[in-house]
Amino acid sequence: MNEITLHSPLDMHLHLRDEEMMKLVTPLTTETFSGAVIMPNLVPPVDNLKSLLAYRERITAAQGSDVFEPYMMLFFRQYTEAELVEAKEHILGIKLYPAGATTNSEAGVKALDAVEPTFKMMEEMGIPLMVHGETHGFVMDREKEFLASYEYLAKKFPKLQITMEHITTADAVDLMGRYENLRATVTLQHLIITLDDVAGGMLNPHLFCKPIAKRPEDREALLQAALEANPSLMFGSDSAPHPLSKKECCGCAAGVFTSPLAIARLAQLFDKHGKLDNLQAFLSDNAQRLYGITPLEKKVIVSKQAFVVPAAYEGHGQTVIPMHAGETLDWAVSSIT
Amino acid sequence: MNEITLHSPLDMHLHLRDEEMMKLVTPLTTETFSGAVIMPNLVPPVDNLKSLLAYRERITAAQGSDVFEPYMMLFFRQYTEAELVEAKEHILGIKLYPAGATTNSEAGVKALDAVEPTFKMMEEMGIPLMVHGETHGFVMDREKEFLASYEYLAKKFPKLQITMEHITTADAVDLMGRYENLRATVTLQHLIITLDDVAGGMLNPHLFCKPIAKRPEDREALLQAALEANPSLMFGSDSAPHPLSKKECCGCAAGVFTSPLAIARLAQLFDKHGKLDNLQAFLSDNAQRLYGITPLEKKVIVSKQAFVVPAAYEGHGQTVIPMHAGETLDWAVSSIT
Repeated sequence: MNEITLHSPLDMHLHLRDEEMMKLVTPLTTETFSGAVIMPNLVPPVDNLKSLLAYRERITAAQGSDVFEPYMMLFFRQYTEAELVEAKEHILGIKLYPAGATTNSEAGVKALDAVEPTFKMMEEMGIPLMVHGETHGFVMDREKEFLASYEYLAKKFPKLQITMEHITTADAVDLMGRYENLRATVTLQHLIITLDDVAGGMLNPHLFCKPIAKRPEDREALLQAALEANPSLMFGSDSAPHPLSKKECCGCAAGVFTSPLAIARLAQLFDKHGKLDNLQAFLSDNAQRLYGITPLEKKVIVSKQAFVVPAAYEGHGQTVIPMHAGETLDWAVSSIT
Repeated sequence: MNEITLHSPLDMHLHLRDEEMMKLVTPLTTETFSGAVIMPNLVPPVDNLKSLLAYRERITAAQGSDVFEPYMMLFFRQYTEAELVEAKEHILGIKLYPAGATTNSEAGVKALDAVEPTFKMMEEMGIPLMVHGETHGFVMDREKEFLASYEYLAKKFPKLQITMEHITTADAVDLMGRYENLRATVTLQHLIITLDDVAGGMLNPHLFCKPIAKRPEDREALLQAALEANPSLMFGSDSAPHPLSKKECCGCAAGVFTSPLAIARLAQLFDKHGKLDNLQAFLSDNAQRLYGITPLEKKVIVSKQAFVVPAAYEGHGQTVIPMHAGETLDWAVSSIT
């Protein structure tokens, strides 16, 4: 196959930031994706309906395409029933960050058992829970150590829909298959890189993200689950722009920027493994079924032709370096209708 | 104890580079160390007696102290017997790099079994072999995967003195104890940091080195061996200056610069664990016994008093950022005679 038509691709985990950076990066997603799940880790966090609706308006104003729906999320805290009732129709779910686990997560949760009343209400009201699942342990063990918490929540709240965000380990893939209410997103980079690409040769800040890329056997397990269109797995880019000054420096921020090239690179990857037919499920159908959403119709044709990834994306006074900067991909988005 | 007197501290693994960088960093070692083993991975490598003697002269000219001996090493290649006979009195040993394993190692060895004639001659002539022991595998496994090669060499050439340079794993500590002809150096940073300090929070290029810092249990095993003055273990800083432009950038070079603060920081570390009495063995006596060397007499008094590590060392048009830049240590070198 030299071409594939994708219907309404979805990015189930996206950072759009705010202000000028948001204005730069939002069109780079809305051009090719029909919808995206918008992370709420701004400063201060998006943890009330008023700020969520205002953020949604700012995103909508920055969109480059009319055919795009931002699926909004609240930042997890202990909410009252009244707050959840009011918010429910405006959100896809609530995102939980362990305090301090990643960028702008200082307001996150310190102990899961203290917030179980909110989990209980979410379960009863059918509001999904999305989780950044890392402990504060040794960097290569953080996700694995968190899996027991996922398992605890999946068992204790069997009707609560729980998404393990941006999984990076074979152990997480295993766990995902064991509970019906556990699903997961995976990024582009974790299907491609390992810690070797971050710190095995020269140190590469542009591939440094949280959770950090793991071992070859982890990448292999994630890739196989994606290629097979595992019904519990969804694409979530976790595309996370940082200004150049925060990346090429001493003490570099965590995040890989992939939005503008994600679909082309995924097509190249799935084609390489002879699994192009499964890309539609990974990029949209699984998410539609798991969250019960019907995205806006957007037809994206991806073709086997050269695509030179720009060395940088610039605008609104911002500069962001993408993954594969300056490299030539074999596949390109050739038509969007 | 608030003070310790060290006799002839030795740095058994040091990079002095060449040209202007050499002029900046050499005095920062020769001030406090009585001698140091000089790595030969220049471009081109120091792999003949003529270039070795010329390099030694350049180092001597750059010395800040008369009381300092550079212990020279040849870069491993297949040498003739005549070459080894001629070089023997001028070198402490020969340093083997697997090709491409670290900075300027492209000329290194591709297959150990192809060079056994040289090992055999070195064994017979009593010339030690120093090894950068890493495979080209996954970054966290490279040293562990190389241990079988150390074991093979230690068994096959039982009289060849083999130093496992800059060990970073508990497995290497274990192996060191099992063969009389296997000894090791360990750096300052690998007694203190893990991968968490390099990539667990923000990415820190100034703590990125090869071999990369490993897991907490590895650091613990290295630290205990050092604190106990394990008779097979020697201090080797692997202090490796890179220009600032190669560290705070995209694609940062590997190497931590510790020479000017190593002795003070080691005193602080050994004092913290109540093992100051073992510092002399770790910093000099073990190396003297293992290599049969008698270093120049240099008395270095280290005292419990504040030492603010400079934010950078500058000179000769070079800027190098040290470990602990701008931090205050509790111990300082207070007298050198």
